[in-house]
Amino acid sequence: MKAINLAEKLAQFNNHWSPKIVGAFNGHDLMVVKVEGEFVWHSHPDTDDLFLVLKGEIDIEMRDGTVTLREGEMFVVPAGVEHRPVARSEAHLLLIEPAGTPNTGDPATAVVKDTL
Amino acid sequence: MKAINLAEKLAQFNNHWSPKIVGAFNGHDLMVVKVEGEFVWHSHPDTDDLFLVLKGEIDIEMRDGTVTLREGEMFVVPAGVEHRPVARSEAHLLLIEPAGTPNTGDPATAVVKDTL
Repeated sequence: MKAINLAEKLAQFNNHWSPKIVGAFNGHDLMVVKVEGEFVWHSHPDTDDLFLVLKGEIDIEMRDGTVTLREGEMFVVPAGVEHRPVARSEAHLLLIEPAGTPNTGDPATAVVKDTL
Repeated sequence: MKAINLAEKLAQFNNHWSPKIVGAFNGHDLMVVKVEGEFVWHSHPDTDDLFLVLKGEIDIEMRDGTVTLREGEMFVVPAGVEHRPVARSEAHLLLIEPAGTPNTGDPATAVVKDTL
């Protein structure tokens, strides 16, 4: 059992919108991800979606408004709420989702989440 | 719906070992806490225990070894594993536990978690 150093994990990859699993918690994946640009509009019908900004800044666009998240800020998109993350420049995030949750909300378009 | 700024939440209190609820995620409380000194040995039979160090450094002592966590490091104590958090000087943490989890593992000795 050892500490999970988030910066060290983030230094191991460069691709965007491809969450990497760094740990497990109560049936959830703990993930880090690098993002830049616009993701797709999507929702997760059965799970909330947790974002914590480790570096940079992102907008979480929702149909009724946008929440801007800066470093050290966290936001939970409630289950079923359509959202689109947008990063004007590269940002680094911690994500927590139930193991197996498709990142796009749809298994057909989801990336495979590698474990670091 | 707005961003949860962890530093702003932490600036609102000074007591130690008294987690404050700052959000909710899939039936879990998202909490910030300031810690200093030794907590009690305890375990949570039904839930993992997630620690993310936002500032400072803590040791998670377990019966078979100690994990040191520095700023930006995370650790999950598996359900049922006895542990004692120790901070030589003040540290600030993000904690995630199922809503209603007693911080000491025992409802009789647990603090009431206020919401910020």
